[in-house]
Amino acid sequence: MCNERQEQDPGKFRDQIRQGKWQKSTSGACPGYVQANLVILPREFALDFTIFCLRNPQPCPIIEILDPGNPIVQEAAPDADIRTDIPKYCIFKDSKLVEERTEITNLWRDDLVTYLIGCSYTFEEALVRGGVPVKNYLQQKDPGVYISSVMCRSAGVFWGPMVVTMRPIPGHLVARTVQITSRFPKAHGAPVHIGNGEPIGITHLEKVDFGEPPVIDRGDVPVFWGCGVTPQLAAMKSKVPFMITHKPCHMFITDIKIEEMAIS
Amino acid sequence: MCNERQEQDPGKFRDQIRQGKWQKSTSGACPGYVQANLVILPREFALDFTIFCLRNPQPCPIIEILDPGNPIVQEAAPDADIRTDIPKYCIFKDSKLVEERTEITNLWRDDLVTYLIGCSYTFEEALVRGGVPVKNYLQQKDPGVYISSVMCRSAGVFWGPMVVTMRPIPGHLVARTVQITSRFPKAHGAPVHIGNGEPIGITHLEKVDFGEPPVIDRGDVPVFWGCGVTPQLAAMKSKVPFMITHKPCHMFITDIKIEEMAIS
Repeated sequence: MCNERQEQDPGKFRDQIRQGKWQKSTSGACPGYVQANLVILPREFALDFTIFCLRNPQPCPIIEILDPGNPIVQEAAPDADIRTDIPKYCIFKDSKLVEERTEITNLWRDDLVTYLIGCSYTFEEALVRGGVPVKNYLQQKDPGVYISSVMCRSAGVFWGPMVVTMRPIPGHLVARTVQITSRFPKAHGAPVHIGNGEPIGITHLEKVDFGEPPVIDRGDVPVFWGCGVTPQLAAMKSKVPFMITHKPCHMFITDIKIEEMAIS
Repeated sequence: MCNERQEQDPGKFRDQIRQGKWQKSTSGACPGYVQANLVILPREFALDFTIFCLRNPQPCPIIEILDPGNPIVQEAAPDADIRTDIPKYCIFKDSKLVEERTEITNLWRDDLVTYLIGCSYTFEEALVRGGVPVKNYLQQKDPGVYISSVMCRSAGVFWGPMVVTMRPIPGHLVARTVQITSRFPKAHGAPVHIGNGEPIGITHLEKVDFGEPPVIDRGDVPVFWGCGVTPQLAAMKSKVPFMITHKPCHMFITDIKIEEMAIS
């Protein structure tokens, strides 16, 4: 969360992270800048994983893929080092979380391919600026996250359900919410479902799979978006022998301004 | 071009092609449906080529990637066979065009990966429906195509200049043109350059590299878009030992309605 001592420039903020001075959530950090989910996989799995993401662009919008073996970001944050510039990493072996770390320098290999995948922090900020009160954002909480019954389109070994986030939106602002988030396809874009969650297998909104249970006020409509946990879950189900991700909420902060990412 | 005997349903039109009854340009065929460029490459080159396309989304918008070895389209036109359902193919060996064919069944290999890449036929139709008189479309001609001085972002062995198309648009309709084409990022999207072509290395609009010289009327402004020839040119420069593409203007016709592809 934002605090007084926090750097608001992405480069300086990443310096803090690299020096081990910031190991917390990046929610609310560097307002106005795009944050990204991280997935790192061996090259052997990269083509199939890329096709999986392209077939499921709402949960898995690719911001950037780094060249195989290269840990230095090219476009989203030139010269950022993906091995050190994220507050916390999760290390998976044979689909099991085996370790959390604050840097992965000595785990790096020449066959690793890095994916930066869009994150809903970006559109939450755009919604609030656009007059839509996103309760979890304003209360500095995570949204409710649910494993839906909608299956992703598979690709090679990668398959799994679409994971979604839900935010309760007042009925008169649902159209505005669609308009604003449609401008950001690289941050999950437009909602995947609006209204009662039953058709997508979500019957009890208070029972979240991840994140925090939502506060639903009278007149709120549930609005669901694809979630960046989807590709991680697919990689775990696929039994990839080795994967590194960010720890949830501990994102990579890019140099891309949110408005630079809007498509219109 | 459209004629009386031509099937307007994409599935039936592809049947005609499959049976060898249509070997001409698909310009104007199946109005209202998205057409696509074709690139087929060995799997060995597919990850780098995919990253190249993602780094250069305006000239190289990916509509679909088929699973390695699979010649059957999944999403853009379920059950279409990419080996037979395109009117003409170009076969490249070591970056040289060695043959043109009307089907590639006996060239198919288990390591081939198929890319369907967006095509400007889609947005030309949307522009005309939106009240913008696209002269080449109305005269059933190809637009002027130019190799610009703008270099694409490279990926692995793939590099090269951005190839662009140019359409002259009356000044009062340039804003509308940007609005309409922005809705179709998978068909090259918004223009990459508007006005005098000199800053992107195009000094003589009558000297096209491909396509047909444009008709420019008083008050027209040159409007440039990324062109699907870009990834083919990059694949040729990269010395890929084997590549199959469609013959220019002989596109793959999908089952996707143009309006289904719009993002807003």
